Amino acid sequence: MNSWNERINMSMLTDFYELTMGKGYLDDNSAEKIVYFDAFFRKVPEQGGYAVMAGLQQVIEYLDNLHFSEEDLKFLSGYGFDDKFIDYLRNFKFTCDVWAVPEGTPVFPGEPLIKIKGPVLQAQLLETALLCTINHQTLIATKTARIVRAAEGRPVMEFGARRAQGFDASVLGARAAYIAGAAGTSCTICGEQFNIPLSGTMAHSWVMLYDDEFEAFKAYALSYPDKCLLLVDTYDVLKSGIPNAIRCAKEVLEPMGKRLLGIRIDSGDLTYMTQKARKMLDDAGLTDCKITVSNALDEYLIRDLISQGACIDSFGVGERLITSKAEPVFGGVYKIAGVVDEDGNVTPKMKISENAGKVTTPCSKEIVRFYDKATGKAMADVLFVEGEEIPNGEPYEIFDPIETWKCKVLENYTTQKLLVPIFEQGKLVYDCPSIMEIRNYCTKQIDTLWEAVKRFENPHKYYVDLSPKLWKIKDDILRSYRKAR
Amino acid sequence: MNSWNERINMSMLTDFYELTMGKGYLDDNSAEKIVYFDAFFRKVPEQGGYAVMAGLQQVIEYLDNLHFSEEDLKFLSGYGFDDKFIDYLRNFKFTCDVWAVPEGTPVFPGEPLIKIKGPVLQAQLLETALLCTINHQTLIATKTARIVRAAEGRPVMEFGARRAQGFDASVLGARAAYIAGAAGTSCTICGEQFNIPLSGTMAHSWVMLYDDEFEAFKAYALSYPDKCLLLVDTYDVLKSGIPNAIRCAKEVLEPMGKRLLGIRIDSGDLTYMTQKARKMLDDAGLTDCKITVSNALDEYLIRDLISQGACIDSFGVGERLITSKAEPVFGGVYKIAGVVDEDGNVTPKMKISENAGKVTTPCSKEIVRFYDKATGKAMADVLFVEGEEIPNGEPYEIFDPIETWKCKVLENYTTQKLLVPIFEQGKLVYDCPSIMEIRNYCTKQIDTLWEAVKRFENPHKYYVDLSPKLWKIKDDILRSYRKAR
Repeated sequence: MNSWNERINMSMLTDFYELTMGKGYLDDNSAEKIVYFDAFFRKVPEQGGYAVMAGLQQVIEYLDNLHFSEEDLKFLSGYGFDDKFIDYLRNFKFTCDVWAVPEGTPVFPGEPLIKIKGPVLQAQLLETALLCTINHQTLIATKTARIVRAAEGRPVMEFGARRAQGFDASVLGARAAYIAGAAGTSCTICGEQFNIPLSGTMAHSWVMLYDDEFEAFKAYALSYPDKCLLLVDTYDVLKSGIPNAIRCAKEVLEPMGKRLLGIRIDSGDLTYMTQKARKMLDDAGLTDCKITVSNALDEYLIRDLISQGACIDSFGVGERLITSKAEPVFGGVYKIAGVVDEDGNVTPKMKISENAGKVTTPCSKEIVRFYDKATGKAMADVLFVEGEEIPNGEPYEIFDPIETWKCKVLENYTTQKLLVPIFEQGKLVYDCPSIMEIRNYCTKQIDTLWEAVKRFENPHKYYVDLSPKLWKIKDDILRSYRKAR
Repeated sequence: MNSWNERINMSMLTDFYELTMGKGYLDDNSAEKIVYFDAFFRKVPEQGGYAVMAGLQQVIEYLDNLHFSEEDLKFLSGYGFDDKFIDYLRNFKFTCDVWAVPEGTPVFPGEPLIKIKGPVLQAQLLETALLCTINHQTLIATKTARIVRAAEGRPVMEFGARRAQGFDASVLGARAAYIAGAAGTSCTICGEQFNIPLSGTMAHSWVMLYDDEFEAFKAYALSYPDKCLLLVDTYDVLKSGIPNAIRCAKEVLEPMGKRLLGIRIDSGDLTYMTQKARKMLDDAGLTDCKITVSNALDEYLIRDLISQGACIDSFGVGERLITSKAEPVFGGVYKIAGVVDEDGNVTPKMKISENAGKVTTPCSKEIVRFYDKATGKAMADVLFVEGEEIPNGEPYEIFDPIETWKCKVLENYTTQKLLVPIFEQGKLVYDCPSIMEIRNYCTKQIDTLWEAVKRFENPHKYYVDLSPKLWKIKDDILRSYRKAR
């Protein structure tokens, strides 16, 4: 058996119940029944106003490579699955239709981020890997967008690989962070795999290897005269680190005609330290020397540092970004939304719960985003039943799906459907944009949100409403369910 | 370029600064300087009393496969690294000595979980991947040990793949959970890769696919007459789910001579629901039908359910285990501890900080665990300088390294060195135990801890002290540093 690190195929990354159900569908002759599934989420982490969709490219790679090896089949056979099911898996061919919201799009609770139509056995099988990927990357992209916003234009580097929850988390987390606006990463393999800018200079151990801090700085400056950035907090920032950095600039770099590019501070009170450091550097004529900081940063600390007048040019952010430490789970779920009969009619399906927040929305749906023509800002999203006519500029009344008396008329708008085709009958029909295209798109899309939606605390709740037709289907099911009890 | 999922080599999973420092060492002719590094942690997550070491096997696979492909070198060349460094990486050969604490061992703050001795360029290079792996799996093993303890002998299944932070996190997280006492996982590929028991039955979507809950149960029972476990909370547990499960047992299974194995409840008040369910099942003669529950479980909720008399036979635990949601970061760090000169003498190195908790312990160290001969319980760990004579039964006084007047004499003990050789000059000398051996070892090792150390709240602080020799080396460095200021 190959070691885990040599794996090449994630098809077996599925909860075991997807397989037990698979065999069950086959036994019950319902495996080919056509169904709709939605992947969606119920709340934005940290009471935020929006999430940022990410992970689609990895879902596509997974789906495009779905197959079971003889080794997999032998393993499952040993678990008691019968020949009929094993043969099904041996001949497995992915034939579903898939739609998804493109990566980098701001998304909201209740919206299908990915919509699947296909035979129930197939559609069920991909639940786990799909959710794992989307939940993880959307979580990190959502968190990063908050941190980048707090930095107010200063670059934010992702530095968290060592604290990530495994290799995928470090690499794909850095990918998601870059999509949502991080300036780059320290994770080398992520730079190699995804063409994301890399940065990194020295650790405390570099400084400690030498008997003297200045000697350590000098050795680094000689190796990197053109990009010399020194870590100044190994011993004492103000008494030792900055003076030695200045000496290095004067005695080592300037005779070579070079400048000290920057310093990094990784501990202590970052407002006080950076203000003092800035003054010492400026007084020494090193006004062009940048100050970068790291150490337990997140959006709240960055906001405070900036508001206190800290002299910081860029941030390195580690564990609080790469694990979304304050809320490390993005609770995406995958629910059946409809069953298609032989004539192509869809029976809507929804999960009913005493908890209104857990009631799902049935049917194959479209997400339509309404933008204000005057400002370009996103005003509301409305879910329509697939095939419904989409409003085309005429005044359109939206209403709250719970408190239905709350309504509002949209005028002077343009619309955009958010779900785009990814697979048609199992065939990939989508060109994944480059990571830079996704990042640029993400920046522009976040710009379409009102500032009120982007607040960290108590953000404005963006409207995600239902078309009257969809609302009525849902309401009818709820009423008939109530009546039957 | 291969897609990320087809990767086979993690050598490039390193923070970029390990590479910039690598080139710097080479330029400064210090690359071959022999150093000691320690990987250790400073605090147990969630104020717990102990952590459980995990992830060593993946560290070994990573180290045993360290090499750079021509593609990697081309990439780094494009980042401005010169031919000298590129050639070094092309001819890279891992030659370090590595010692580690075996997986499944309870470990404590300040102890070197992994100790590296080797050329500084090499030792530095492996920091990121090593920490990433140990931090992740130790985090999940530590959390799982808490949850398993709360369950008081009832099986705990790991169900979190969909909420894990990526594929590695789901698979290796499930591995770590199993080591620390989980009974199995839902993650199929983890079962395949690591020979861990799998479980899983049906999702709500199975029930919703059918027009009627009973029909759904019947179809499942016919497919799995010997292991029929039904999810009973899709509509209404007590009014619909349990009655339909009982009917399925009576009308479908019993005529085949089969029994209903169990039911699962995934929502609602689990104490109330399971008590009612138990009574309904018992009244129907299904006293052998097991009740399993899931839904936002962790050690606290499990403890409360049990203390409230919930009728639960086993638990399925998801996101709160697989992400260690309450504290999703294990803060392992990697610090230089000594530099070896040409004569083999070690200059101790330590990071000095105003924050006592951040001061490291210098030297190449041994961890010695003292067990009480009478009870078999672990009494204390003491760090010795490598080569020091280890006490052999004679009364041995330990003392608190900060409040040194607090001391205690150990008598009637046996000792065990925790660090074992893994690589000798780059050659693997350690046979990884099977996952089952690790798990059994872990259970026994946790049994050596006093109950007071295992409390969730305010556990007894286990002693991790320094030998007088090591304490003096550290104290001398601190004093001479203070004097120099």
